[in-house]
Amino acid sequence: MLLFTSTLLACSLLLKAQPNYKVVLDLTSGDSISQQTAIRWVSEITKAEPTAQVEVVMFGKGLPLAIKDKSAVADAVTNLATNKNVAFKVCSVAMANQKVDKSQLLPGVQTVPDGIYEIVSKQHEGWGYIKVAH
Amino acid sequence: MLLFTSTLLACSLLLKAQPNYKVVLDLTSGDSISQQTAIRWVSEITKAEPTAQVEVVMFGKGLPLAIKDKSAVADAVTNLATNKNVAFKVCSVAMANQKVDKSQLLPGVQTVPDGIYEIVSKQHEGWGYIKVAH
Amino acid sequence: MLLFTSTLLACSLLLKAQPNYKVVLDLTSGDSISQQTAIRWVSEITKAEPTAQVEVVMFGKGLPLAIKDKSAVADAVTNLATNKNVAFKVCSVAMANQKVDKSQLLPGVQTVPDGIYEIVSKQHEGWGYIKVAH
Repeated sequence: MLLFTSTLLACSLLLKAQPNYKVVLDLTSGDSISQQTAIRWVSEITKAEPTAQVEVVMFGKGLPLAIKDKSAVADAVTNLATNKNVAFKVCSVAMANQKVDKSQLLPGVQTVPDGIYEIVSKQHEGWGYIKVAH
Repeated sequence: MLLFTSTLLACSLLLKAQPNYKVVLDLTSGDSISQQTAIRWVSEITKAEPTAQVEVVMFGKGLPLAIKDKSAVADAVTNLATNKNVAFKVCSVAMANQKVDKSQLLPGVQTVPDGIYEIVSKQHEGWGYIKVAH
Repeated sequence: MLLFTSTLLACSLLLKAQPNYKVVLDLTSGDSISQQTAIRWVSEITKAEPTAQVEVVMFGKGLPLAIKDKSAVADAVTNLATNKNVAFKVCSVAMANQKVDKSQLLPGVQTVPDGIYEIVSKQHEGWGYIKVAH
């Protein structure tokens, strides 16, 4: 009985520490409205819930958000990337296809071997998924 | 052995009672084709499977579907919202950003504090997710 | 201790055999760029990870990819459909709405009673989900 109570208590503490606001944003559009939308969502989420974890994965046509001379939201990306609960990850396959070098990425932007697998893995780990589109 | 059989039986009854047709539709587009698409899907799902649960979450540019003088599908929204297995939920953050008041929403339309969190929570509870786009 | 080690070993073998690269692509757009994007992703995924399972579900306006005289990627669909880890599935409700007959579908393309339920079921089984959009 004591064991059962302790287990319940441990679980409820665990739940309290994990409000489950983890979301991966899928960006495959390069237009500036989509870029601004993605950044507004990241800003609003982290402001409303500072412990929320947000990851923006770019592949397909979505790379410009993270590229120095192409991003419509360069300053915001650089600032948000310093937040340990925010990550910007670019697909290396798409970078190779589009001849984008790591040196062209904004400070703090990361790369992943495969953007789709990154998203699938996050979903498998229980993260929510939102496609950025309008 | 008897216990094992009973457990199996209970599981299969449970599965029968939970066909798991629960889906959240993510609408962030305001064009009338997207509105009509969302409504057609809600209608078709509930007609094919009356116990299915469908929720349309609107944020970003997706609010017009639920706004009295802007919706291209006002009557359909009002009718479908009377179905207890259907919900239309608008993000309060987007409403504030876009100066939309609750009084402007169609009858039966609900609000949620954060549309993205609403979707993430539903996914976490096992609901399927479909982005409305074309 | 031996039991513990065996269990660990079994788990790691299981993990190796299930890299969990299962993804359903949701296509509701008929434009040729979306078609080419979907096909490029399927090709890249299966090339990078031959055991990955990929399913493209077409409904709404997404049917042209799979229709003989309308597909911009007919040869690629026919070739990829021979891969036992790849499936192209068209929603029968959308086919009826749009007066598309099974005989018009490319070789190897399958039909499902309800495209949205197909996607929701796959998500429920733990597959990842990616919306094709740009």
